[in-house]
Amino acid sequence: MLNLIGMGLRGVQSLTIQEDEILKRSHRIYFEAYTSIAPENTINELESRYSRSVKPLARIDVENPEEIIKESLDGIVSLIIVGDPLTATTHNQLRLEAQNSGVEVKCYENASIITAAFGYTGLFTYRMSPPVSLPFPHEKFFPRSVYDKISKNIEDRRHSLILLDLSPGKGMKISEAVKYLLEMENRFGTGLLTEDRELIAISDLGHSDEKIVMGTFRSMTSYEGGKINCIILPERPTEDEVRFMSMFCRKLPL
Amino acid sequence: MLNLIGMGLRGVQSLTIQEDEILKRSHRIYFEAYTSIAPENTINELESRYSRSVKPLARIDVENPEEIIKESLDGIVSLIIVGDPLTATTHNQLRLEAQNSGVEVKCYENASIITAAFGYTGLFTYRMSPPVSLPFPHEKFFPRSVYDKISKNIEDRRHSLILLDLSPGKGMKISEAVKYLLEMENRFGTGLLTEDRELIAISDLGHSDEKIVMGTFRSMTSYEGGKINCIILPERPTEDEVRFMSMFCRKLPL
Repeated sequence: MLNLIGMGLRGVQSLTIQEDEILKRSHRIYFEAYTSIAPENTINELESRYSRSVKPLARIDVENPEEIIKESLDGIVSLIIVGDPLTATTHNQLRLEAQNSGVEVKCYENASIITAAFGYTGLFTYRMSPPVSLPFPHEKFFPRSVYDKISKNIEDRRHSLILLDLSPGKGMKISEAVKYLLEMENRFGTGLLTEDRELIAISDLGHSDEKIVMGTFRSMTSYEGGKINCIILPERPTEDEVRFMSMFCRKLPL
Repeated sequence: MLNLIGMGLRGVQSLTIQEDEILKRSHRIYFEAYTSIAPENTINELESRYSRSVKPLARIDVENPEEIIKESLDGIVSLIIVGDPLTATTHNQLRLEAQNSGVEVKCYENASIITAAFGYTGLFTYRMSPPVSLPFPHEKFFPRSVYDKISKNIEDRRHSLILLDLSPGKGMKISEAVKYLLEMENRFGTGLLTEDRELIAISDLGHSDEKIVMGTFRSMTSYEGGKINCIILPERPTEDEVRFMSMFCRKLPL
């Protein structure tokens, strides 16, 4: 049996009562450690709570899961995934391969940044857009697709959620993201992303040092954020949304 | 202090470890009972787990929260909300009013049908669309907007998530929804929703009797679903999505 266990956004304390019971009964516990960043000490806390070793998995381990599948045929294996377990394709691929090998797979949904980010800021869920990932650019890779997706959301009057890239253990800063987005505007732009445009920077949501901050692109050029960051670009918010945002987000001085 | 506690999709067992601790410390526990349907016996289970009475709230109580706000000024009040606490505007309105009255408000995100539905079926999150609500129609109200939103998603090659209406305690059946959608096609249609079109019917996700079933509009005309239902209309799924869907959804015979 293989359990895909969503851990939500707050580390061990956002495991559900049911997930907690399943982990107590598991023979083997893995921890997927590359699609997000958990609060510090999560692995230590898990090991002490469940009195067994918790093995972190890299991308290559999840993409070559023969060992995990073999263990799941013989015993109860649980893989803990930060956030919701099924929003990244890689986990559905594992689920498929395990099922194809005759393993019974159970999934346990949990909170995802995709819905939580909109909710916390006060923006309406029915005006959300699918998440856009902003990768670290390099000389030969500066993806126009990010700009195109944002343009499309603006055209459709939807709020853009931009998930900032992670290199192992380190998230892209808000200031870096703002720089990349303005650079995209320079290269491909049609005047959408000006320095006066408002954005909401969301850092370490649910962690003890979470920050939800609103300001212009200009005011964010020196704002770092936290360990794992995302941005929402509100698009023509309604009066209610403006009221909510101004109560629920801290304002960054210009 | 007012805590907005997301309960996720599975009743008491999908409360998080942290939420469980907060509820143990709460002087007053309310349960919001009109934006979703919890598994049967949820209130009884909550009352026995926390050894105090749990008061269900109707829409009118949440929209006129003077009493709740007054209690939150004096003690620890927790409001449990099925799914994620912040995806419905009504809860952000309560949060705003409480903050404006000087109450400290804390929110605890949890799983939402909006992300879970896409994940469970194997469809890619970055091709999701904002949820569309399908209300019970009546003679003078047969909303074209639902059809227009679906059309827009089809045009954008995005999967449509359609949340089926609730009247108190009773969800719209899949067969009813299919009938309403085909009727919309008749009245406003441009040939998008044919009887051969595939849909995924998701019922009571996370409950012990959850069902995720794939079939054509035609095959669903006599399929009831469960107590709380939603539909996904996959739009030109990729090869990977087709592989996932066919492993993760049960096929309904034609």
